[in-house]
Amino acid sequence: MKPLTIYELAQMLGAVPEDASNFSIHGVNTLENAQYGELSFVSNPKYACLLASTKASAVLVRRDNVPQEAHQTTLLYVDDPQAAFLRAVQYFYPQNIFSQFASQGLRHPSAVIAESAQIDASARIGANVVVGEHCTIGANTCLYANVVCYDRTEIGAHCIIHAGTVLGSDGFGFVEKSDGSFEKIPHVGNVVIGDHVEIGANCTIDRAALGSTRIESGVKLDNLIHVAHNVVIGENTAIAAQTGVSGSTRLGKRNRVAGQVGFVGHITTADDITIFAQSGVSKPLRRKGTYFGTPAKPHYKAAREEVATRQLVEALQEIRALRAEINLLQQQKS
Amino acid sequence: MKPLTIYELAQMLGAVPEDASNFSIHGVNTLENAQYGELSFVSNPKYACLLASTKASAVLVRRDNVPQEAHQTTLLYVDDPQAAFLRAVQYFYPQNIFSQFASQGLRHPSAVIAESAQIDASARIGANVVVGEHCTIGANTCLYANVVCYDRTEIGAHCIIHAGTVLGSDGFGFVEKSDGSFEKIPHVGNVVIGDHVEIGANCTIDRAALGSTRIESGVKLDNLIHVAHNVVIGENTAIAAQTGVSGSTRLGKRNRVAGQVGFVGHITTADDITIFAQSGVSKPLRRKGTYFGTPAKPHYKAAREEVATRQLVEALQEIRALRAEINLLQQQKS
Amino acid sequence: MKPLTIYELAQMLGAVPEDASNFSIHGVNTLENAQYGELSFVSNPKYACLLASTKASAVLVRRDNVPQEAHQTTLLYVDDPQAAFLRAVQYFYPQNIFSQFASQGLRHPSAVIAESAQIDASARIGANVVVGEHCTIGANTCLYANVVCYDRTEIGAHCIIHAGTVLGSDGFGFVEKSDGSFEKIPHVGNVVIGDHVEIGANCTIDRAALGSTRIESGVKLDNLIHVAHNVVIGENTAIAAQTGVSGSTRLGKRNRVAGQVGFVGHITTADDITIFAQSGVSKPLRRKGTYFGTPAKPHYKAAREEVATRQLVEALQEIRALRAEINLLQQQKS
Repeated sequence: MKPLTIYELAQMLGAVPEDASNFSIHGVNTLENAQYGELSFVSNPKYACLLASTKASAVLVRRDNVPQEAHQTTLLYVDDPQAAFLRAVQYFYPQNIFSQFASQGLRHPSAVIAESAQIDASARIGANVVVGEHCTIGANTCLYANVVCYDRTEIGAHCIIHAGTVLGSDGFGFVEKSDGSFEKIPHVGNVVIGDHVEIGANCTIDRAALGSTRIESGVKLDNLIHVAHNVVIGENTAIAAQTGVSGSTRLGKRNRVAGQVGFVGHITTADDITIFAQSGVSKPLRRKGTYFGTPAKPHYKAAREEVATRQLVEALQEIRALRAEINLLQQQKS
Repeated sequence: MKPLTIYELAQMLGAVPEDASNFSIHGVNTLENAQYGELSFVSNPKYACLLASTKASAVLVRRDNVPQEAHQTTLLYVDDPQAAFLRAVQYFYPQNIFSQFASQGLRHPSAVIAESAQIDASARIGANVVVGEHCTIGANTCLYANVVCYDRTEIGAHCIIHAGTVLGSDGFGFVEKSDGSFEKIPHVGNVVIGDHVEIGANCTIDRAALGSTRIESGVKLDNLIHVAHNVVIGENTAIAAQTGVSGSTRLGKRNRVAGQVGFVGHITTADDITIFAQSGVSKPLRRKGTYFGTPAKPHYKAAREEVATRQLVEALQEIRALRAEINLLQQQKS
Repeated sequence: MKPLTIYELAQMLGAVPEDASNFSIHGVNTLENAQYGELSFVSNPKYACLLASTKASAVLVRRDNVPQEAHQTTLLYVDDPQAAFLRAVQYFYPQNIFSQFASQGLRHPSAVIAESAQIDASARIGANVVVGEHCTIGANTCLYANVVCYDRTEIGAHCIIHAGTVLGSDGFGFVEKSDGSFEKIPHVGNVVIGDHVEIGANCTIDRAALGSTRIESGVKLDNLIHVAHNVVIGENTAIAAQTGVSGSTRLGKRNRVAGQVGFVGHITTADDITIFAQSGVSKPLRRKGTYFGTPAKPHYKAAREEVATRQLVEALQEIRALRAEINLLQQQKS
């Protein structure tokens, strides 16, 4: 992209430079890594100390909370430094899409696409992607390399599915026979994904036994996440890496789930639930709030128990001391 | 598939309709999602309440435990509603196999298969599958898209391997040198998989350093499971998603392992062991039974400790109260 | 490979046979699985008991700690049996590389490689690998089947990347809007991997938002590991399967991290840290040492708390007993 002068950049971002210097900016970077000619930003005041040492030529800062640190860089005052920085990133990297697409058109010739699949003309399909029969893929959706869509998977518009993710594999359902062996339960449902969904790399979303496993619009999933058959993940819920959701569980809207969390099957969470990392959610979470632990409980309870557990070794010593003193009191009594 | 009349369906499933109505059924679905013309079932009495609202035209119920709920649907009495329903599913979806196969024959032309691999003529190999040298694949086994079999992997008959799973990658074995760097231990063994094994999507089964990593017949693995080098998983064991088994560990027959469980290396579990989710199995489990926790212990012990931990905050207060009262008794004494 | 006589083998490995028998060895195996004509080794004395039953024709043992067990096999005395055995393995399996390469040259024709990618002539690229624009791959590096490198990924020399691993997918970064929906933060950084790095199967290493996610030289990662955006993993650190490292966290050199561990974001660990399985690292670990638990703490503390927790049920009973006895003492007093 064409470099911008400080003047042009300030206009684009609605920023006010602290002085009249008007050099040229050719890229964006973090305060720590920025070099001469690059733009950076300070959003969290705790990083303002890096202003003294940054090599960035210009830094976006809050208009109403200007850092007082000495600096050699040129400050640009804005209302929201992070938002302004994002716009600058989008200017300098307008097409941050795996460039296999760019060089080969919207569908890489190595992709294997069933004839009955209905793919919007604007969707991008990466190298070695496999799209099964009767799948549908909406406008502007992007499937990176090696994504696999089993038959009848439905993906909405403006979605991003990262490399290696599998959509529509059979759910893990068997009937146990009397000798301990298993008969497979056919999984004849599918996976349905809304609009503006992003799914990370090497995730697995199983098809429903009957009906659909549903990832609703606006959901964001990180990498290596497992979503079992017949799960529903509510609108605008975000889930961090390596979390697993067991069969038929329904997460509410705007849940914020950290990494390595596990959900048992057949439970429901309310809207606006936050769950901390490595929790094991074994019961329905009916109230908006923050949860932690295995089994997951309200965060303030889990935190109190954690503090108490740290005192446990001393508490056991104290119990033994109390026992000895009571025994003594009892002896003196008799 | 051709729709069936209630009369034909009852004959096929050994069912007795509650009345003489004889309309046509064209599909199967859950009580909740079923539409007019579809068959459903009630196996667990707690879902019988859905009978009042289901739109299913017919519902399979237990002959000896007929639900009393008011309903508009036609009940079909059978001994085992779930088993009868499975047979109906198999009738309506006879060939629930990723249809990439159907349109392209048994081996998708995009699959990369080494010349020395021996693949039964009835096995199905999906798009972009990679099969290394000297692999063997048995009758009626199905490898979905993007499965990778490293050299000398052996897969039995009637197996299903879901998309993205890797069989035979090198085990994680290194010799640590005095400077903290590593020398790789060559992994020259292989992976051997029995008959009737199903492995979910994006799993990783490492080859043995020497000898074989073995997944015995009838084993069912969910998605994103890690099986390390030289592990043995006994017949008819089932393991839920995101569990990991470290090197040289041997699981017994008919183990039931929930999700996100971890096993340390070089231990053995007995037959007929059940392990709850997120447990960390750090020692051999020598007795049939149910285990939970990190470290995993008999479930009743883990449950008692969990209950006790919930009382811990109050217990610490009580200890402080006891201390104060004893101090007072001691003062009064002197 | 050509079989070796005991005499030739002893010369190659610097070993001294216990007697003059000079038969032929054609392979290597574990004590337990070895057959006639194979070489094995005893490194850990606890396995010396297997000497009595092994069918191996020859076994490498420590020169200074000769096992006293009766045996039918021929012992070969060496300083370091494991090291000598590794050399024998390398002789009998000189080219333990996924043989898709061997039959097809160094780059499998099914690989999709961007024109702008710079790949050393000695690097091996497996079937269905996808290499994006402006990637670089160093000498003797090997990418197994179905590896995906997003644009601008840089991989050093002598690396091994196992099948299905994704390098350079977008980090999980979004700005939350007031209605709970998300705006994607563009990830315009990349992934940089040093020399002599091995990464297991189906891992995911996200690209940096800005700058680079760095896996330094000598690092070994097991399978199904998640490394988030802007993480740095220090030289010669080894991490076992299913561990996840959150964004911007920096691990020191020579860390030894067990399986299923989670690290929160934006923390640092010192050099020479060991972390046990399933730990949740929620704070910086500033001191060399061994850690365990969720939240992770020095291992001796975690072990003491675990022992105390096992005594908790009885401790609660004792507290109730103490309460009753004190109440009695108080009554007697009054």
